[in-house]
Amino acid sequence: MKNYRYKAILAYDGTDFAGFQVQKNARTVQGELEKVLSKIAKGEKIRVHGSGRTDAGVHARGQVIHFDFPFYIEPDGMQKALNGSTTKEITFTHVEQAADDFHSRYQAKGKMYKYTVDNNRFRDPFLRHFSCHHRYPMAMDPIQKALPYLTGKHDFTSFASTHGETAHNVRTIYHVRVEHDAASNKWTFTFVGNGFLYNMIRILMGTLLEVADGRRPASDIPLILEAKDREAAGKTSSPEGLCMEKVFYDVEDIPGYTTEGD
Amino acid sequence: MKNYRYKAILAYDGTDFAGFQVQKNARTVQGELEKVLSKIAKGEKIRVHGSGRTDAGVHARGQVIHFDFPFYIEPDGMQKALNGSTTKEITFTHVEQAADDFHSRYQAKGKMYKYTVDNNRFRDPFLRHFSCHHRYPMAMDPIQKALPYLTGKHDFTSFASTHGETAHNVRTIYHVRVEHDAASNKWTFTFVGNGFLYNMIRILMGTLLEVADGRRPASDIPLILEAKDREAAGKTSSPEGLCMEKVFYDVEDIPGYTTEGD
Repeated sequence: MKNYRYKAILAYDGTDFAGFQVQKNARTVQGELEKVLSKIAKGEKIRVHGSGRTDAGVHARGQVIHFDFPFYIEPDGMQKALNGSTTKEITFTHVEQAADDFHSRYQAKGKMYKYTVDNNRFRDPFLRHFSCHHRYPMAMDPIQKALPYLTGKHDFTSFASTHGETAHNVRTIYHVRVEHDAASNKWTFTFVGNGFLYNMIRILMGTLLEVADGRRPASDIPLILEAKDREAAGKTSSPEGLCMEKVFYDVEDIPGYTTEGD
Repeated sequence: MKNYRYKAILAYDGTDFAGFQVQKNARTVQGELEKVLSKIAKGEKIRVHGSGRTDAGVHARGQVIHFDFPFYIEPDGMQKALNGSTTKEITFTHVEQAADDFHSRYQAKGKMYKYTVDNNRFRDPFLRHFSCHHRYPMAMDPIQKALPYLTGKHDFTSFASTHGETAHNVRTIYHVRVEHDAASNKWTFTFVGNGFLYNMIRILMGTLLEVADGRRPASDIPLILEAKDREAAGKTSSPEGLCMEKVFYDVEDIPGYTTEGD
């Protein structure tokens, strides 16, 4: 039987999900998507493949999935059907028909994540699900000193959860940037790389927060990388601040791309 | 017994509250505040007075309250105690000791509200609790033509809920402004006035949305005002988009202030 492969980009509020990946007895993004797609497919089970997992409480503005569908629906109609059937926590921002061999995970060349920190003394109630609250005043200078140590190809073992499954912990960060909005006292960190280890950005952030508020010098970063020991880095920061912004399938679209990561 | 009067400014996410004002068998902001204050006052009942009510689902960044407290706590300690005890949906952004005759409602000289519209074809999941979703494309031009009709002293009967209790429907709008963020397709309307009737901003917004998407000409606005008839105006737009931004106690702080409203 002929199947039609679709690629879709979605945004979701991860607050009330136990993460992306299907789990028994837990409400997950993948589970919700497969349920809705099955309904549109008149009961046939549809398997959804994501570009990567997100943990409980982590959000996405640009998660990419693919799935095979048993009959043809034009992409705009598929997008309407999906947005009309799924929970308001999820929005399909783009749907297209994809090549039969398109794979959302295997063909991803890079990803962009953002991490938001609410640096107000008392938490902003509107950001509580979408930021990590850090009450100790942060300074731009030490952060700007720390970030260049992270770009390039490194063994990120020190910044990987020991629960991670990957044996090879070398990744390339193409681009990293910080912005501070003075009016709201919100800090936004952007990370672009060819891939990220389990909890890597949250451990990087836990460490950068120590640098930002003066508990640790920026020059610790290369020493932590060199240590290849999770104990050398800071805590794993909270999931609420993290958002998967974009998945790149063409290296030309990747900010700061170098062949170093290939 | 000597009481100490405090003035406080608070931000709250109104999503899961049945509005500001205490009601039987409903979770309200005032109810939550009085519960927390009573706890800090070692069980003594404390009455909270707000600058104005907000409806279910309506938010605040700058609601002002006052209350009398049976013993002295320095304002910074009071702020810490309040933020430490209350739900994460509410944050006290400022606490000060006030004059014994300060009254948050009677002494308010003006208020600023913002109303946010998500004009994306498909709802932005991160804005779903903090905006009104309007899928029909909005244009800046007709809005800019409509807004000047609203400033100044008018009888706003056409823009008042018929459930409102006020017999006198004359109010002065000092300042009204619209901003469009092209990246997120989010529209923000700002209203500053000496006071607003029940549902007035939501009915103004329901009408302005009709102007914005071409269903009604901007030149209808003066005719609607003149009609003094709720039926002449548009629908009451949804509460999620509305946020009480600021309460003014000094006319010099009010953007666009004129003595017309006195």
